[in-house]
Amino acid sequence: MTGADGWYRLGAGTIGQERDVAKTARKHAEPNHKRAPAGPTGAQSDAAAGDDSEITALGLPPAPLTPAMAAYFAKCEEKLGFVPNVLKAYGFAMPKLEAFVAMYNDLMLAPSGLSKLEREMIAVAVSSHNRCYYCLVAHGAAVRQLSSDPVLGELMAMNYRAARLSQRYRAMLDFTVKLTAEPWAVEDDDRARLREAGFTDGDIWDIAAVAAFFNMSNRVASATDMRPNKVYHAQAR
Amino acid sequence: MTGADGWYRLGAGTIGQERDVAKTARKHAEPNHKRAPAGPTGAQSDAAAGDDSEITALGLPPAPLTPAMAAYFAKCEEKLGFVPNVLKAYGFAMPKLEAFVAMYNDLMLAPSGLSKLEREMIAVAVSSHNRCYYCLVAHGAAVRQLSSDPVLGELMAMNYRAARLSQRYRAMLDFTVKLTAEPWAVEDDDRARLREAGFTDGDIWDIAAVAAFFNMSNRVASATDMRPNKVYHAQAR
Amino acid sequence: MTGADGWYRLGAGTIGQERDVAKTARKHAEPNHKRAPAGPTGAQSDAAAGDDSEITALGLPPAPLTPAMAAYFAKCEEKLGFVPNVLKAYGFAMPKLEAFVAMYNDLMLAPSGLSKLEREMIAVAVSSHNRCYYCLVAHGAAVRQLSSDPVLGELMAMNYRAARLSQRYRAMLDFTVKLTAEPWAVEDDDRARLREAGFTDGDIWDIAAVAAFFNMSNRVASATDMRPNKVYHAQAR
Amino acid sequence: MTGADGWYRLGAGTIGQERDVAKTARKHAEPNHKRAPAGPTGAQSDAAAGDDSEITALGLPPAPLTPAMAAYFAKCEEKLGFVPNVLKAYGFAMPKLEAFVAMYNDLMLAPSGLSKLEREMIAVAVSSHNRCYYCLVAHGAAVRQLSSDPVLGELMAMNYRAARLSQRYRAMLDFTVKLTAEPWAVEDDDRARLREAGFTDGDIWDIAAVAAFFNMSNRVASATDMRPNKVYHAQAR
Amino acid sequence: MTGADGWYRLGAGTIGQERDVAKTARKHAEPNHKRAPAGPTGAQSDAAAGDDSEITALGLPPAPLTPAMAAYFAKCEEKLGFVPNVLKAYGFAMPKLEAFVAMYNDLMLAPSGLSKLEREMIAVAVSSHNRCYYCLVAHGAAVRQLSSDPVLGELMAMNYRAARLSQRYRAMLDFTVKLTAEPWAVEDDDRARLREAGFTDGDIWDIAAVAAFFNMSNRVASATDMRPNKVYHAQAR
Amino acid sequence: MTGADGWYRLGAGTIGQERDVAKTARKHAEPNHKRAPAGPTGAQSDAAAGDDSEITALGLPPAPLTPAMAAYFAKCEEKLGFVPNVLKAYGFAMPKLEAFVAMYNDLMLAPSGLSKLEREMIAVAVSSHNRCYYCLVAHGAAVRQLSSDPVLGELMAMNYRAARLSQRYRAMLDFTVKLTAEPWAVEDDDRARLREAGFTDGDIWDIAAVAAFFNMSNRVASATDMRPNKVYHAQAR
Repeated sequence: MTGADGWYRLGAGTIGQERDVAKTARKHAEPNHKRAPAGPTGAQSDAAAGDDSEITALGLPPAPLTPAMAAYFAKCEEKLGFVPNVLKAYGFAMPKLEAFVAMYNDLMLAPSGLSKLEREMIAVAVSSHNRCYYCLVAHGAAVRQLSSDPVLGELMAMNYRAARLSQRYRAMLDFTVKLTAEPWAVEDDDRARLREAGFTDGDIWDIAAVAAFFNMSNRVASATDMRPNKVYHAQAR
Repeated sequence: MTGADGWYRLGAGTIGQERDVAKTARKHAEPNHKRAPAGPTGAQSDAAAGDDSEITALGLPPAPLTPAMAAYFAKCEEKLGFVPNVLKAYGFAMPKLEAFVAMYNDLMLAPSGLSKLEREMIAVAVSSHNRCYYCLVAHGAAVRQLSSDPVLGELMAMNYRAARLSQRYRAMLDFTVKLTAEPWAVEDDDRARLREAGFTDGDIWDIAAVAAFFNMSNRVASATDMRPNKVYHAQAR
Repeated sequence: MTGADGWYRLGAGTIGQERDVAKTARKHAEPNHKRAPAGPTGAQSDAAAGDDSEITALGLPPAPLTPAMAAYFAKCEEKLGFVPNVLKAYGFAMPKLEAFVAMYNDLMLAPSGLSKLEREMIAVAVSSHNRCYYCLVAHGAAVRQLSSDPVLGELMAMNYRAARLSQRYRAMLDFTVKLTAEPWAVEDDDRARLREAGFTDGDIWDIAAVAAFFNMSNRVASATDMRPNKVYHAQAR
Repeated sequence: MTGADGWYRLGAGTIGQERDVAKTARKHAEPNHKRAPAGPTGAQSDAAAGDDSEITALGLPPAPLTPAMAAYFAKCEEKLGFVPNVLKAYGFAMPKLEAFVAMYNDLMLAPSGLSKLEREMIAVAVSSHNRCYYCLVAHGAAVRQLSSDPVLGELMAMNYRAARLSQRYRAMLDFTVKLTAEPWAVEDDDRARLREAGFTDGDIWDIAAVAAFFNMSNRVASATDMRPNKVYHAQAR
Repeated sequence: MTGADGWYRLGAGTIGQERDVAKTARKHAEPNHKRAPAGPTGAQSDAAAGDDSEITALGLPPAPLTPAMAAYFAKCEEKLGFVPNVLKAYGFAMPKLEAFVAMYNDLMLAPSGLSKLEREMIAVAVSSHNRCYYCLVAHGAAVRQLSSDPVLGELMAMNYRAARLSQRYRAMLDFTVKLTAEPWAVEDDDRARLREAGFTDGDIWDIAAVAAFFNMSNRVASATDMRPNKVYHAQAR
Repeated sequence: MTGADGWYRLGAGTIGQERDVAKTARKHAEPNHKRAPAGPTGAQSDAAAGDDSEITALGLPPAPLTPAMAAYFAKCEEKLGFVPNVLKAYGFAMPKLEAFVAMYNDLMLAPSGLSKLEREMIAVAVSSHNRCYYCLVAHGAAVRQLSSDPVLGELMAMNYRAARLSQRYRAMLDFTVKLTAEPWAVEDDDRARLREAGFTDGDIWDIAAVAAFFNMSNRVASATDMRPNKVYHAQAR
């Protein structure tokens, strides 16, 4: 999970939970987008009902994994103890899954002037603006893990302006959230503020690309009602 | 904390933490609104620095507690193990503290057609719209505790629309969030939808009053940069 | 109405009108939220039909007044000539009425670094942003009375930016309206601007608390379709 | 003011006030856009300072009136007792003044399926959305006069949704405010709702044209800080 | 089209196209606001179906042209090769048409401190904010023609912030778009920025008046579903 | 460009223009983000100055092309006559370029229940909401080409609601724009409307994925001030 073999992380991972992927896959093979709403007595006992079995609201049965993706899923199982639901959601079409994985791993795990934590902070700040349940859960867990600061994950999800941040972090997130909220208004002055905070032009690309990626992912998740693995909720608290 | 003597709850409580209130009070007596920003190496090691000692950005030294408030604080200590920071924040002026406590306890703890959980769900949905760090932390913990469903607390804080809610809960929160976001547009049709979901006119008052109260509290907290007791973060996960 | 015994003011008061509170109370005792809409020929003859008899859209019959509240209502009658409708609206439950009155009187009438006029200006600027009919009418009248400047009340209700204001007033209202419109974005810089305009930290609390209170009251009023006493409209023009 | 010779109305008029137009015109001839801000002790004593002498923030000296416009101004003096400030503001260029007067009089005073009151209600609802001080003051007075219902003027300026309106009025104002707030979203369904409320296609044009005109006028007024004649404030209360 | 006889321009004009105005007029004489939606196989073959024949969604038959307007239409035919549809749309009522033409020609074609191109740039920037199909098409063509820079027309319609503009142009358009989006917030500082960019007070009036005019025209067009002459689309590409 | 070998399209292509890619590449190798603003006399003569040479505001020199990417660029040259600037922008890092190309080609060119035109219509509607200059230019050209309806491209870029669209197209774009503007509010009802319009769950994924992708691309383009190849502007008019 840390260091060199971090490539398999999507959001955050942990060990020893939700091992019965085969069962999950079978469930997913019987898609049903008519998920029952909560009963009349309230939903508090299961507000996240089905999150681990009915991963999206779309009835798209899983395709056979390509060898590369089978190996990737196996690695997730081995290292994280589970396959992140977003991978299962894309698993109905191997070209889509592979393209997603390639872009994700380059952006979030490849060498960059931004630390992995910084990239996850961007992910959560974007997802907070867009109120994306899937990404807030999965990447909030990642911020908690990578920072060893559980509260930082909460702050990114709730309101990054309330966190006690360095000037570097603050500039990075101000750019991120402006790009998310009103991309049409980003101009030279905004890039200049990043340079003043010490970011190179390569870093600016990476900030922009990660923020942009989660503006994509948030919308795929919201459009399909994608549900995060329940295991994320308790991680690194 | 549960049942009859729940009256002392503000947000959520637990036992055995942050007992040294005297020390905290002394710190608070030396107000300093020039809280140091995080260092250049980033803030992840302490994104919530000072949350338990410098409760607001305003330098308002605590006033002597009235007997009633001293008893109230002692009860908090005894039952929760700590005094919620919002009480300390109001503690610079006894009339303000007493008025706040009286209104809070009536709204959140007195008998009502709404359950305590429902009132806390309203609190968190409002606070999510307003992105209020203090209230999301304190009342998110309360939803987790009262529902015994940790994920429900997350969902209220992130996006209530993503939760699997009963029609009753959904109608309650739709009204709540509309009243928060565009109060000028609330009309008879909105009240009619609550009645259709089974709420009485007394319930409608309570939904409105709780939602309105947190629109007040969120703004006091944001205006003063109020910080939640750190103990909330790990409660009922 | 002026000076020491100003404590009974809610919005604005005047003398000699709407004395028949007993009759009004009887009407209120027969709640009917099916208020007839205006006829097909238009509503101009009575756009505020029922404002003095059907105070909210909720059918909540008045509770017996506690001695303290009976005295308070009598004092309103004596000094203002009427009981403000917001008090009657809260009158279905004495604990709610008493908590509201206690908080209101502390915020609006107790000693403060803010003048009573300043507090009423905040009330109207908040209510203008939230387009709250009840509060604009009642507190617009208060601004007209306290300032002896009828146009100031209009300006606060219409667009405070158009008024010729001192730097102090302008800073106070800029903070107020930002806190109302986007509380999540209030930060140290905003507090600093208030300090630069001469406000103490105690004043900042009071500005925040009054602005926050009317963000609550506006929403209770809008959620319940609360109607202002008609007598306010012509006051202090 | 009523009936046939209503053509000279701009906003609302009354008799016997502010007769010293000659003096006002001289003041206007000495333009000064460096209007002094209010002093440090607050502005309540004169929040509308200069409204009758420095009509805009632009230094544009009045041009000689053409005979037609001289007659028009004289008629205003005779019938209203004053020349509405918007006319003086346009008075620096006769072609602009004449084009404005021609369009205004056709829209607001010529025969139409909409009553004069309806057209003034549209004017105020638009101006309320746009928070235009000039137009709210001048046309709020007109609604009060034409309806003989002082509260209706207040309601249009504060929040038309709070008024007890006929279906016809409500449909008219819903269209008006949607066209003001999000013109890009007006479609066939919106026009259909007007037809269902009994409006002809000619009426729809007129609703649109009046609403559109005040979206223009509001912006000319806001861009130039145009000030309404003080006499409007007390009219028809 | 250039120089002295530019007075007949509305949007942009060209020569030799759409000469059969008589036929168009006849069609317009048979109003039908039940325009058929596109068939089930998609609309790409005629997304602008009827734009040249059914000019608005309202059934308002053309009135006989006054001599002045007949001469004006003839001049349009002669110089542009067509009568701009906005003129035909207003053609159901001569006083409305004449008032519109008078104001339009004064604003867009009369001598001014703003060049004709600058006025058209303002028109398109406003229309872009308001997403007005008619005005973007007609005035986008005008910007392309007057500037001999086809891309400038595109940039004004898409996002003026992306254009490489002089400080003068940028200041002019920043004011324009702020006045369009939030007229209530335009204040002395905004006018000061225009003066710093070299604009006189007369120029500021003209910027405001043109921006305001298109806030009107955009809404008349959107409210009536006004369609631009198809000939504009290909002009000056 | 048409039919089977459409895989190389990015936005739209044409033949015989801008062949000197080598020269362009050299320019790009000398990055300079200090692009001169337009001179004081205005920018109309070159509002898109440098669009073909300084492709982004970031100084990121091109990396050596991998064989796969060299072949891809050569194919673009052969078929389109130019390499789309977005590819050059990503060309500073081969893994990023390859991941972008893989995802783009799967989404926009692989078999799908959506036609290529439909996917391009989604691209433009998203880009219109986000006011993205690059994507509006490149994909507006694609809509014009694929539909053989130049006006359809304009309508998608200006306001899709003004187009005469089939129910299928309209449902597709309503979902697209809601997902772009307020992803947090997309729910089962929105998906149901797509199903009612005849879309399968696989189609819904594709609509969501294409809309989401352009929410990413728009933000990369805006964050970096990416400039479209000038050749697009005149294509398929």
